[in-house]
Amino acid sequence: MRGKFITMEGCEGVGKSTQVSLLIDYLTKLGKKVYFTREPGGTVISEQIRKVILDPENTEMDAVTELLLYIASRRQLTKETIEKKLEEGFYVICDRFTDSTLAYQGYARGLDKELIKKLNEIAVGEVTIDATVFLDLDPANSFIRKGGADMQDRLERENIEFHKKVYEGYRHIAAENPDRVICVDASAGKEEIAAMIIEALEKKGII
Amino acid sequence: MRGKFITMEGCEGVGKSTQVSLLIDYLTKLGKKVYFTREPGGTVISEQIRKVILDPENTEMDAVTELLLYIASRRQLTKETIEKKLEEGFYVICDRFTDSTLAYQGYARGLDKELIKKLNEIAVGEVTIDATVFLDLDPANSFIRKGGADMQDRLERENIEFHKKVYEGYRHIAAENPDRVICVDASAGKEEIAAMIIEALEKKGII
Repeated sequence: MRGKFITMEGCEGVGKSTQVSLLIDYLTKLGKKVYFTREPGGTVISEQIRKVILDPENTEMDAVTELLLYIASRRQLTKETIEKKLEEGFYVICDRFTDSTLAYQGYARGLDKELIKKLNEIAVGEVTIDATVFLDLDPANSFIRKGGADMQDRLERENIEFHKKVYEGYRHIAAENPDRVICVDASAGKEEIAAMIIEALEKKGII
Repeated sequence: MRGKFITMEGCEGVGKSTQVSLLIDYLTKLGKKVYFTREPGGTVISEQIRKVILDPENTEMDAVTELLLYIASRRQLTKETIEKKLEEGFYVICDRFTDSTLAYQGYARGLDKELIKKLNEIAVGEVTIDATVFLDLDPANSFIRKGGADMQDRLERENIEFHKKVYEGYRHIAAENPDRVICVDASAGKEEIAAMIIEALEKKGII
């Protein structure tokens, strides 16, 4: 039986890593085979691409070049790993995937959203995301959660504006993909959020 | 005044390098500023991408990943170098460019041609190719030119079929882009071919 592909999305500081861990724990306890991955990276080739993207010397990198490299890395991860793990019946959990590119590069940085959608389709090919968990929390609140008032002070106005755009982007994506995206109120406690995620995935017949 | 962007295309063994050199010599003698480049590579970032593409360890590389990496490399070369050199008034001569990807990956290897066209458009952006010189020679003949009968003997049947497909691809591209692509009969002598290229470029008002 084919596995299930679940992606986890949300702004920074929203508690995504914690929820990824809790979900993996839950699925493992149910006796499911779970495969966790994140981008950019996850295969030898994707790691090589990651190095090019993250090389601090590469100050001349064009924004679309960077986008194409992310898409190339995603394509390789999808074909080499995700597709195979799904065929082998794994629950594949990916920390950030296509929606991150659309929210960050598209909605926040202003790259052409239709272009990003097309490139995401190329990267993913025949693979279907069964569910995307969007941890829905206004960035102002998630900054407070992550670092308290100190952290919020350190963040420049521009930076906050950027994360607000990312958040609005995610809200648009969720509204455009109601069948795929599960919006979870991430202002609750972590155990409560985890329970909401599991309930939503059960309701969708994924668990 | 904006420079001119000329790409040189054709099957292997057709005498492309020779014609590139002769054209550069001619333009230089006319007192033109000439910038020569080739793919994949041409910028620090493109060279890093080239390494990923050509790494012999990367046997797991998906064909679309490879295509995306070529396109990323092309995008960077276009934005970082070609665009600037054109603005500075250079004649930019590129040994292989967008049409090579369409002929080799599309027509010969069977990747989706519409996808390649879209990705080429993304790579090139606002830059226009003023003229493409297609050195038109049937691969059977160009193999003879390059290595004689010995070389032809060494080539497997499959390999010849591949190059025939590349050639047919180029013919299609030329037919679809009559305003841009200059077809030059490459069975003539090298000086004669060079003269035909120059004449065609003059006729188009490029030289």
